[in-house]
Amino acid sequence: MPGASVIGVDIGGTKILGRISDVDDGTRTIAQVRIPTPKGADRLMGALVALVEDLVDASGEREGLAGIGVGVAGLVGSGGVLRYGPNLEGVVDLDLAGRLGGAAGVPVVVDNDANCAALAEARFGAGTGVSDMVLVTLGTGIGGAIVTDGELWRGRHGFAGEPGHMVVDPHGPECPCGRRGCWERFASGSGLRALARRTAAQGHLGTVVEMAGGDPAAVTGELVVEAARASDPQATAVMVEFAGYVALGLANLVNLFDPEMVVLGGGLVDAGSSLVDPVREAMEGLAVGHGHRPSVALELARLGSAAGAMGAALLVAPGAPGGDGPKG
Amino acid sequence: MPGASVIGVDIGGTKILGRISDVDDGTRTIAQVRIPTPKGADRLMGALVALVEDLVDASGEREGLAGIGVGVAGLVGSGGVLRYGPNLEGVVDLDLAGRLGGAAGVPVVVDNDANCAALAEARFGAGTGVSDMVLVTLGTGIGGAIVTDGELWRGRHGFAGEPGHMVVDPHGPECPCGRRGCWERFASGSGLRALARRTAAQGHLGTVVEMAGGDPAAVTGELVVEAARASDPQATAVMVEFAGYVALGLANLVNLFDPEMVVLGGGLVDAGSSLVDPVREAMEGLAVGHGHRPSVALELARLGSAAGAMGAALLVAPGAPGGDGPKG
Repeated sequence: MPGASVIGVDIGGTKILGRISDVDDGTRTIAQVRIPTPKGADRLMGALVALVEDLVDASGEREGLAGIGVGVAGLVGSGGVLRYGPNLEGVVDLDLAGRLGGAAGVPVVVDNDANCAALAEARFGAGTGVSDMVLVTLGTGIGGAIVTDGELWRGRHGFAGEPGHMVVDPHGPECPCGRRGCWERFASGSGLRALARRTAAQGHLGTVVEMAGGDPAAVTGELVVEAARASDPQATAVMVEFAGYVALGLANLVNLFDPEMVVLGGGLVDAGSSLVDPVREAMEGLAVGHGHRPSVALELARLGSAAGAMGAALLVAPGAPGGDGPKG
Repeated sequence: MPGASVIGVDIGGTKILGRISDVDDGTRTIAQVRIPTPKGADRLMGALVALVEDLVDASGEREGLAGIGVGVAGLVGSGGVLRYGPNLEGVVDLDLAGRLGGAAGVPVVVDNDANCAALAEARFGAGTGVSDMVLVTLGTGIGGAIVTDGELWRGRHGFAGEPGHMVVDPHGPECPCGRRGCWERFASGSGLRALARRTAAQGHLGTVVEMAGGDPAAVTGELVVEAARASDPQATAVMVEFAGYVALGLANLVNLFDPEMVVLGGGLVDAGSSLVDPVREAMEGLAVGHGHRPSVALELARLGSAAGAMGAALLVAPGAPGGDGPKG
């Protein structure tokens, strides 16, 4: 592998995290930059090129850059073309790999952001040593990735692993994707907020409403998580109800993929045991043939918000110690 | 491969189909036997041993039997142990491979019945030449199997590919599995019957009620299919509504697995275009990012009710022409 450093970029709907790290140790951050995600393809490309420049400058590694890995919230087709990003306004069929590679003069590899996070968690985080893993990220929406035999499962066109839009209730709330009752309407951060506001509007969740300045419509998922962590009983009850929705979708995935471990990532990981414990409890008994099959381990992601950028770097550099790079 | 013939057995909840065929041509049936599925593990084993004897006798191939492949409706663990068959009363943790192999004196390989059907359809049927395929069987219940890169995907413990118990409506009807709103409550033959009876009870489906002897509660899915094939408008409307449920689950699978082709098998295949056309129409637009990704082909299985037994034989014999055996 020529070069001493590698850049990983994680493009989300609201922010972009860029990170330059050691080729030989993907866990060692040399420099890191976070910027808001601009709207439109050209502004996005401009921001990415500038971000790469900044990272190279910050690291002083101008000659030693081995390549750039990019994770992006959307459907990434072969050749690193972003086909469609539901949260990236005005960005469709964008040749991310080609344009960024042309500007930066180094190899660029692009993949889905949850795929990148899964690569990182499988290599350095919760899934170390696990060969069959499903990663589900619970953030504003829900992302997912499937690792089997240590490799990412991308599907025929690279679009596999989109559990967020698994319909779990055809009579459920409308989803921006055009359908009703997608899992992410219930089990994402947005789902938690909606559930909390509905509960607050019914006169419950007193502590959390107070935290929100007395306005039930100002309640957020973060406040519910905070109150549940402080053992507020009504917030805990909301987390248990929410966990039921999370478990419902996870059980569907377990019945389809039969993984060894499910890793929960995304912003809701901050809820810690106030989320994982009731999810684990609700999942018991939801797998087909439970009692006749091993339980599936449920773990929290360990790499935090850097997982996507860390895994993006793994797309282009092996990121040893401990592995010889993604094979998928 | 020693031996000139191979036996494939398909164990369903109500009947068992055994078939002896050429090692060198899996499509050539030497003899075939169908028996009802007995209740209880010991009676099941006894019936299987007798079935194998009958097939060997019928074929005159006593010396040339290469092995026995068995497909069974249930969770099959490593080593050919049937962990759990929801439709096989009194059968749990049964060492099918060990016990049948001991009695027959030839190698026995056991897998899930839908996995076997998928192997056969991939080799000889609708999925010939397709590397990434999802097979969904719509019968009394719903079975499924995933073929990726030409190989069956079994998951960590061999239990992958159980779409029938994907919950698609937590407020839906109770399922014998203990949950509510599993996909097979809506999109199987049982689901079609329930929908038809509900519709008939509301005073619709006149032709079909007449076919059922005037009793709305005696309406069956088969009668609806028959009337829809004869272009009865009310039966056609029920098929379109039913197709919506089928498409909902298939779209979930497409969003998770991103296959090249979805193959529909099972008894409902008899409905032909009266089912496939509205399913195809309802699926359009249900995939995440539709318009930015290739459409997924939707095809009917081609091997009929012998697919399971045919594929079971492929577990032990290559079944050329055209392939060098399952690699998964």
